[in-house]
Amino acid sequence: MEILVVNPNRVDGCTLLIHEAARAAAAPGTTVTTLAPRRGPAELTGHCEVLFSAVGVLELIAETPADAVVMAGFGEPGKEAAQELTAAPVLDITECGPLLARTLGARFTIVTSTAAAAPIVEDRLRTLRLDAACAGVLASGLGVPDLVDHREEAVTAVADTARRAATEVVVLGCGGMAGMAADVAAATGLVVVDGVSAAVKMAESLGALGLAPGLTPRPPVTGWPFTT
Amino acid sequence: MEILVVNPNRVDGCTLLIHEAARAAAAPGTTVTTLAPRRGPAELTGHCEVLFSAVGVLELIAETPADAVVMAGFGEPGKEAAQELTAAPVLDITECGPLLARTLGARFTIVTSTAAAAPIVEDRLRTLRLDAACAGVLASGLGVPDLVDHREEAVTAVADTARRAATEVVVLGCGGMAGMAADVAAATGLVVVDGVSAAVKMAESLGALGLAPGLTPRPPVTGWPFTT
Amino acid sequence: MEILVVNPNRVDGCTLLIHEAARAAAAPGTTVTTLAPRRGPAELTGHCEVLFSAVGVLELIAETPADAVVMAGFGEPGKEAAQELTAAPVLDITECGPLLARTLGARFTIVTSTAAAAPIVEDRLRTLRLDAACAGVLASGLGVPDLVDHREEAVTAVADTARRAATEVVVLGCGGMAGMAADVAAATGLVVVDGVSAAVKMAESLGALGLAPGLTPRPPVTGWPFTT
Amino acid sequence: MEILVVNPNRVDGCTLLIHEAARAAAAPGTTVTTLAPRRGPAELTGHCEVLFSAVGVLELIAETPADAVVMAGFGEPGKEAAQELTAAPVLDITECGPLLARTLGARFTIVTSTAAAAPIVEDRLRTLRLDAACAGVLASGLGVPDLVDHREEAVTAVADTARRAATEVVVLGCGGMAGMAADVAAATGLVVVDGVSAAVKMAESLGALGLAPGLTPRPPVTGWPFTT
Amino acid sequence: MEILVVNPNRVDGCTLLIHEAARAAAAPGTTVTTLAPRRGPAELTGHCEVLFSAVGVLELIAETPADAVVMAGFGEPGKEAAQELTAAPVLDITECGPLLARTLGARFTIVTSTAAAAPIVEDRLRTLRLDAACAGVLASGLGVPDLVDHREEAVTAVADTARRAATEVVVLGCGGMAGMAADVAAATGLVVVDGVSAAVKMAESLGALGLAPGLTPRPPVTGWPFTT
Amino acid sequence: MEILVVNPNRVDGCTLLIHEAARAAAAPGTTVTTLAPRRGPAELTGHCEVLFSAVGVLELIAETPADAVVMAGFGEPGKEAAQELTAAPVLDITECGPLLARTLGARFTIVTSTAAAAPIVEDRLRTLRLDAACAGVLASGLGVPDLVDHREEAVTAVADTARRAATEVVVLGCGGMAGMAADVAAATGLVVVDGVSAAVKMAESLGALGLAPGLTPRPPVTGWPFTT
Repeated sequence: MEILVVNPNRVDGCTLLIHEAARAAAAPGTTVTTLAPRRGPAELTGHCEVLFSAVGVLELIAETPADAVVMAGFGEPGKEAAQELTAAPVLDITECGPLLARTLGARFTIVTSTAAAAPIVEDRLRTLRLDAACAGVLASGLGVPDLVDHREEAVTAVADTARRAATEVVVLGCGGMAGMAADVAAATGLVVVDGVSAAVKMAESLGALGLAPGLTPRPPVTGWPFTT
Repeated sequence: MEILVVNPNRVDGCTLLIHEAARAAAAPGTTVTTLAPRRGPAELTGHCEVLFSAVGVLELIAETPADAVVMAGFGEPGKEAAQELTAAPVLDITECGPLLARTLGARFTIVTSTAAAAPIVEDRLRTLRLDAACAGVLASGLGVPDLVDHREEAVTAVADTARRAATEVVVLGCGGMAGMAADVAAATGLVVVDGVSAAVKMAESLGALGLAPGLTPRPPVTGWPFTT
Repeated sequence: MEILVVNPNRVDGCTLLIHEAARAAAAPGTTVTTLAPRRGPAELTGHCEVLFSAVGVLELIAETPADAVVMAGFGEPGKEAAQELTAAPVLDITECGPLLARTLGARFTIVTSTAAAAPIVEDRLRTLRLDAACAGVLASGLGVPDLVDHREEAVTAVADTARRAATEVVVLGCGGMAGMAADVAAATGLVVVDGVSAAVKMAESLGALGLAPGLTPRPPVTGWPFTT
Repeated sequence: MEILVVNPNRVDGCTLLIHEAARAAAAPGTTVTTLAPRRGPAELTGHCEVLFSAVGVLELIAETPADAVVMAGFGEPGKEAAQELTAAPVLDITECGPLLARTLGARFTIVTSTAAAAPIVEDRLRTLRLDAACAGVLASGLGVPDLVDHREEAVTAVADTARRAATEVVVLGCGGMAGMAADVAAATGLVVVDGVSAAVKMAESLGALGLAPGLTPRPPVTGWPFTT
Repeated sequence: MEILVVNPNRVDGCTLLIHEAARAAAAPGTTVTTLAPRRGPAELTGHCEVLFSAVGVLELIAETPADAVVMAGFGEPGKEAAQELTAAPVLDITECGPLLARTLGARFTIVTSTAAAAPIVEDRLRTLRLDAACAGVLASGLGVPDLVDHREEAVTAVADTARRAATEVVVLGCGGMAGMAADVAAATGLVVVDGVSAAVKMAESLGALGLAPGLTPRPPVTGWPFTT
Repeated sequence: MEILVVNPNRVDGCTLLIHEAARAAAAPGTTVTTLAPRRGPAELTGHCEVLFSAVGVLELIAETPADAVVMAGFGEPGKEAAQELTAAPVLDITECGPLLARTLGARFTIVTSTAAAAPIVEDRLRTLRLDAACAGVLASGLGVPDLVDHREEAVTAVADTARRAATEVVVLGCGGMAGMAADVAAATGLVVVDGVSAAVKMAESLGALGLAPGLTPRPPVTGWPFTT
């Protein structure tokens, strides 16, 4: 099966890390293509950028055939919109990390990037109706560039944050933490779930079972904001 | 004070109705400018359009000086992003309708447009933490064009839907219903709150009290998706 | 319009502060009358006094014509009863402070008077279905006389308490704090909402929009406990 | 032990029925005194009357020595205030009915008097944090006089209402239904819990175990609203 | 009436303490028989032992006639199953402690045995729909043998833990704490409720009122796991 | 990898159906062994049988080496206990069905077997903190023998029940419905998730990612109830 993974930011190092984590998680017959939007902000430093990036993410999803789509931003909106553009199931790492973590413990803690991201993640979990199982959202204090460019320090900071969790299971709450799960687990002794890997496996699971969302018929999507 | 009201769709009749409702609600010293996005979808027929329209809405808010901003889409995202673009308070009718209604009864019912809009509204209320006071979201079955172009039938349909509410207080859950509150109240005997009017009054209230959201310092917004 | 503001306690200094805050918030055409009960306890030091004061508050509301009524006790009962006595909308500062605060941030913190008042406020918010948006109720440790008679120290104590809030928006949770919002905001850099001012503006908003609660027909109120 | 039972209304027939139900539930060594307020409304037809009656109820409790107090109004306020007036435990039938019912099934349904009473009961359960176990509040349509004066028809109406419950356990949600549990159970085959009986047994239980609420020290209660 | 009390573990000292607490709580006409399972684990050190012990507990309940059954394990499953084996009401101390405590304060804190037991108790309270009134579950760090064999130290440790509660009312959350309520109350000044005593009184209450769960007809129970 | 699937009942036809569904879902390199308990009830007709069956299920899990364990009873307890007996992850179809379904829609409906099973499933979802996303539990009215022996009628009945769902996504809420998803989906046009298949894929996902629950060290399990 072909999985399209979309990194909502345009930090090349981040796209690469996400791609590697996705490929490492993928089964033999699975092809992974990881893309970043052609348009939109380089980094998602606020609510505006998060919204803008969604347009580029949707553009990619609309034009790239795939058997499943993984949205690799944690806490970002757009899954419901993306699902209108493709018959393939769209999986959001904000869902898949917590959902897979839930099989490993009754409650989990999310370690996210910056303090500003934490309430965004909390609000998104509330909308997704996954808040009851979340014991807390902790910020590591690191943005995507720090997570990507200073890998060793980043692992240390994420592990230090994870140790403050009241649960045994921790979800990595940022695409820039992709590929870091094993190191954080080794450093802390905790069970560490990476959302990108989880989403790839759940995409494969849906594919193997022939499951896809019901396609509510809708008129063609119009009004892309970059056209005039 | 100058209030900028933004209609997220580009249906001229809808912008006009919203403008009239806002102006009718405004106090003597208040100027109301009502705009629709220069780019984006004509109608918000799905999640994609809702997201696309937010870009144009944000563009308007960034370039139009105002003392307060009213976002006149019910259930649409973007308030948090808009607040990054202006020091003026940004008020969302999805909040203001229910908040003002809450002073008139312990619980309220929302009458929204199409059946497809109902779960979007429910999810947004959950994120806004206003779901506990909402006794239900009922769909009138009418989209924005129907609400705008066939006004008399629309009032009848909205009133018929409102009569199914289990509460005495009803919130009009669509910008296209702006200006319809008195007619629906007269037809049903219920207390009917229009979100646009409520938002204008709450904008004036904040202005009079000198209240505005705390401005978390942030770097300039970049990555508008219509630039390259 | 004429707004009747009722202070549930009989501390003259408190009535005066509430009156000044209400007048300061009122629009040009609005007249504010602020009264304290003719009977009942001087201070609301416990649940009994809170209940007793409600009788005097209701007596005032029944005999004083007004276009809107503001109940200026935070956490006190009686709004539903008061609404039976007048066709004018009755606004409780326990509702209006949080409701207006909600437009300024997803969550707010309440700074209340004594430690004994905090669980009363928490319980009342639960009944009002506003608990989900409340990030906490913090006690300043000051009762009404302290708040009224030692104003400077009171502002300092309330500001110190407000700094412990986990949210940017703070609601002043005691009528005795009326008029203190700007000072606390200046001292802390937080967004500070005063319930009395909020209620006055929401009363004016309802008036301007022609909104009032539905009048469920009921037999004349009997059994005032001071008659025999 | 001596139990003081207080009927919040002043319908003699109702006081008598409550007294008989309490006495029938009482253990051999228990004395039951059932009183109605000397002042206040005859019937609790609205929120005002409910509040007024609380003053007379508190007056009785303050002046009548007892080992335990049972407040026999369903959904009425005042328990917290009453507890300030006596070192004896104060039990509210609104709590005791549901609490005892909870041992007989995971969820229960409340059958209350009039449609107007139902939301009052729902709100009170929410404040008491007993709402999660309540599957619904159904109104029989009968006020206290109907429940008291037309006993046979009342049993039929309450039984008919109880049959609509989705649970096996039903709580009688009005003091005027005291003594009716066995008849309703016989008519419906359901498990029917009467709050007055439940409260008497819980009062005896607390007495036997030497349990009473912690007495938070407080200044003398002042401000009775019937004094000047 | 005859009450069968079942201790889920097989620690003789624990059975004895439970028996003494139950007998001390029982009214004159009540006979108390306290038994431990004939089969199953000596101590309930984990989820497996908790489940295994339930089989022996059910065996006892099936073969021992009684007018009421008290299950004296805190947080253990099996009440619903036990109720299938007898027409007598089955009371679980996990319910009865919190339910009686609820009459003494709006919220209560549970002091349980080991840290491992705390999440089990939290989950069970959630299933029982009693979590909203629980302000927290605190672990004393003592298992049943410590609680039983080193009584004085145990009282000290439980009292020390209880002092950390944010509420005035504390529920002893382990059968091994039976009989300790008065000492912990004396040491802390808190209101301390013992679940075994509470369950005995609630069993007597149900008996006196002629209340028992509705008997859903079911085929004979088969498949006892110790038969082949 | 080797997956041990355990059917909690001892209906051979049911074990076979579960095995076939598990095998059909399994990836090429996965071996599936499906077993039913050697001891315990044939059918799970009540709470007692559910508890008894858990002992036999645990016995199987303790003695059968596997890389992952799937518990194929919907609403049955025992997962936490099973996880104490093996270092391999234990997956409960009650979790896995809803968790995978959650990626396909914001909310799902569960179609379960008998009316008696519905509240058991509701309670279990509450404990698992998955209740917020569940729009309802509907009973098909069919027990395991009916589901197994009269397959065609069973599919019709399950499909008829599923059509009453208010959501597009339906979870088959009984092990006896294993293998029925495609037929019910074809008959209804809904998205139908089978818990057994979901659990197999999630087991494979955890295996591929090297994830397993943290092993809290514990003493050897003792007290199996079939030993003396």
